[in-house]
Amino acid sequence: MAKQLTSRKENYSQWYNDLVIKADMAENSSVRGSMVIKPYGYAIWEKMQAALDKMFKDTGHQNAYFPLFIPKSFFSKEASHVEGFAKECAVVTHYRLKNDPNGKGVIVDEDAKLEEELIVRPTSEAIIWDTYRKWIQSYRDLPLLINQWANVVRWEMRTRLFLRTSEFLWQEGHTAHATKQEAIEEAELILDLYGEFAEKWMGVPVLKGTKSPNERFAGAIDTYCIEALMQDGKALQAGTSHFLGQNFAKAFDVKYVTRENKLEYVWATSWGVSTRLVGALIMAHSDDNGLVLPPKLAPIQVVIVPIYRKPEQLDAIREKVQTIIDELKKKDISVKFDDRDTYKPGFKFAEWELKGVPVRLAMGPRDLENGTVEVARRDTLEKEVLQLEDIAEKIENLLEKIQDNIYQKALDFRDENTFTVDTWEEFKDRVEKGGFVKAHWDGTPETEQKIKDETKATIRLIPLGESGETGKCILTGLPSEKRVVFAKAY
Amino acid sequence: MAKQLTSRKENYSQWYNDLVIKADMAENSSVRGSMVIKPYGYAIWEKMQAALDKMFKDTGHQNAYFPLFIPKSFFSKEASHVEGFAKECAVVTHYRLKNDPNGKGVIVDEDAKLEEELIVRPTSEAIIWDTYRKWIQSYRDLPLLINQWANVVRWEMRTRLFLRTSEFLWQEGHTAHATKQEAIEEAELILDLYGEFAEKWMGVPVLKGTKSPNERFAGAIDTYCIEALMQDGKALQAGTSHFLGQNFAKAFDVKYVTRENKLEYVWATSWGVSTRLVGALIMAHSDDNGLVLPPKLAPIQVVIVPIYRKPEQLDAIREKVQTIIDELKKKDISVKFDDRDTYKPGFKFAEWELKGVPVRLAMGPRDLENGTVEVARRDTLEKEVLQLEDIAEKIENLLEKIQDNIYQKALDFRDENTFTVDTWEEFKDRVEKGGFVKAHWDGTPETEQKIKDETKATIRLIPLGESGETGKCILTGLPSEKRVVFAKAY
Repeated sequence: MAKQLTSRKENYSQWYNDLVIKADMAENSSVRGSMVIKPYGYAIWEKMQAALDKMFKDTGHQNAYFPLFIPKSFFSKEASHVEGFAKECAVVTHYRLKNDPNGKGVIVDEDAKLEEELIVRPTSEAIIWDTYRKWIQSYRDLPLLINQWANVVRWEMRTRLFLRTSEFLWQEGHTAHATKQEAIEEAELILDLYGEFAEKWMGVPVLKGTKSPNERFAGAIDTYCIEALMQDGKALQAGTSHFLGQNFAKAFDVKYVTRENKLEYVWATSWGVSTRLVGALIMAHSDDNGLVLPPKLAPIQVVIVPIYRKPEQLDAIREKVQTIIDELKKKDISVKFDDRDTYKPGFKFAEWELKGVPVRLAMGPRDLENGTVEVARRDTLEKEVLQLEDIAEKIENLLEKIQDNIYQKALDFRDENTFTVDTWEEFKDRVEKGGFVKAHWDGTPETEQKIKDETKATIRLIPLGESGETGKCILTGLPSEKRVVFAKAY
Repeated sequence: MAKQLTSRKENYSQWYNDLVIKADMAENSSVRGSMVIKPYGYAIWEKMQAALDKMFKDTGHQNAYFPLFIPKSFFSKEASHVEGFAKECAVVTHYRLKNDPNGKGVIVDEDAKLEEELIVRPTSEAIIWDTYRKWIQSYRDLPLLINQWANVVRWEMRTRLFLRTSEFLWQEGHTAHATKQEAIEEAELILDLYGEFAEKWMGVPVLKGTKSPNERFAGAIDTYCIEALMQDGKALQAGTSHFLGQNFAKAFDVKYVTRENKLEYVWATSWGVSTRLVGALIMAHSDDNGLVLPPKLAPIQVVIVPIYRKPEQLDAIREKVQTIIDELKKKDISVKFDDRDTYKPGFKFAEWELKGVPVRLAMGPRDLENGTVEVARRDTLEKEVLQLEDIAEKIENLLEKIQDNIYQKALDFRDENTFTVDTWEEFKDRVEKGGFVKAHWDGTPETEQKIKDETKATIRLIPLGESGETGKCILTGLPSEKRVVFAKAY
């Protein structure tokens, strides 16, 4: 096949773009900054949704749906939220078009101007907290544990498929609690859940921690995050969970009557992951031959390619393959028999390699004679010929092995690319080369900003808990309570 | 409980509104015309989505995602589409807000005006066909069978929860085919699939047919539809499937190379159902006590209410109930044990009745002694005391019986309210009282319009196939090939 990829070494960024396009994951649309998610890419997102949705429901959350549009004035209610979010937004000003009197298609009807402009949601705290005021009266109504699957829009000047697009798909959880402690526990529960999803499903090891004030969500008291390391040594924020304190309850006047019959503001969290995770998945594991997908999120886990010259050979292979397919399906393994007669086996091998199908089976006339099948792993590109006996079980085990191996490989890579440095010179040098860099910081936003200006590196997270190791800030030499993790980031 | 509903007889419209609000299905938001779908209402939509999504996938369709925004000029490309759709739309004109220099929150930044306005999709034919031009080159790329789950916006002046809202959720299928015949077969396949969903899942019997030209989708050659009858005698369009001919292929220049190496325009369909179905579900079955939900779409299929005076009685009941819950869960029956100590059994009974839970179990100390449980059906409000032996199986059978009964009741109602009339006087009288009215029509849009102006009734559908019965138009007396179905409609 003619789908040659740029190599990672040559140009990592180009490699990523090529891969997303050539593996049929997504493409740019005619609307600037918006992508089309193609069926193969969307199937991965659906698998992510299903796994996350189950995790949310198993921990007591329910789904709901809130309006796409938010009245402009709502954004002014929470002071820091408006600074962070109400700026680069899509603004609806009119609600009607009319025929152009000059006969040139349609034009905006100036008579249909909205009294108050509507903002296409960049995130839904404002509209949801406006609603919660009506839902919450008493401690009996708490906790309120709601999640929404939705599209959001944040106007972006420089976009990249999956990683940064003006419109993206996500889930946003919004919870309300009677006590501060309970809200913090919720934010931490979700952080753990995101971490588990990244590691167990995506095969992507993540660091957990909190953001420095500079990187915090607009309106949050504390932002928890998971951070992953990509193959080019840049960090990628894969999910955030915010403890919002009483900021939104105060902004939208959401109070409840306690068991002791007192009136108090409720405590809040919000948290989200988006289609950006698909980008992270691609970047974390794939190679110069194409996608490498963890079996748990692969839309097709096993592909079977017949090798034949004559139609009667295909018939015989088809018959044998059907029993394999039936057995795999019984184990809930998704399998595709690629019997297209318009392409040759070599083309098909390259195509499924490009698309990251974890296991490829090839069966030819000699296999039929010998009762064997050729099994190829996408992650290691290893091949072996196996006896057909218990083949479904062998493949099931192999898929588990691949899932583990993908994770382990990413973990080894991260370990090799995590550094501890103590001097400014060493820091600058190390950060430039990529990787997570653990260093001391004096705790001030000013220093963080200076470091960013000079090195483009930001504090990805402040590790949770006590470190037991104090030190001196790499830039200012001032005292530091613990090391924080720096990196250049997506 | 204080949640008294208006009765259907008193005011059907008010009954519906009360019910949607009091059963916690949805509510109006602070954004005019947009609703908030609450967790209980959204859980029904999720069950609908899951069933439909499986039907689509089982018939070879794949999901994808296309942009929310459509450039204004795209709407002018298909002549009748622009007339039907590009009018009452939300128009995005700017992409940035800024702080009001007078300190009054945020205002639109006039420097951030879009060169071309973006329309929030009212339906996605335009953006999807613009994309298909890039995806389709050869007969090998066909058929293309794509579905999208999305939100859409059509500006509405008079809205009703679920039935008519400015923003709503839906699925929209968009397929491309090599031949006219194949596209027509696809549109009919989906019509059958929608019909099966309405009847088997929702328990709502539907008529199938095509729309008259007046009621056709803007841009379609033929619109197939399913129509249901509500309890007030008004019809509700529950789903449409459109054969689009080559209209969109021509408008967006989508051609393919045939097997014979000729260049031809592709053939298209589109089809959709929306959150309107939740409204139809509520209206079709519910009564003056609240919702009546078919078991297959009920978020909670069985609720168990303990009857006790002393805590130790509750403990004993809880223990017995746990085995019932375990057995029901093994059968994939969703069950809730309502052990809230803040409400009395009578309150709980009324609440679950209002929320339409199909089966309610009540267990008290005497049941413990006797090894029994009280079983109440929501659809008939009948109660009986059953032995606990094989209780899960008994409940499973009961749920099936309820599903059948709900459908049969709706079918009987429709049969009783379907009339055949031959004179204009009879027609006017009958249509005014409600129900489906089968009558002859001369086939002209003018006559249909006159009938609508005089009676508010529209042609809901033209039955498929030959009728074998010709006649004379009820209004003009001109010849008619077959009876069509009239009704006043939502």
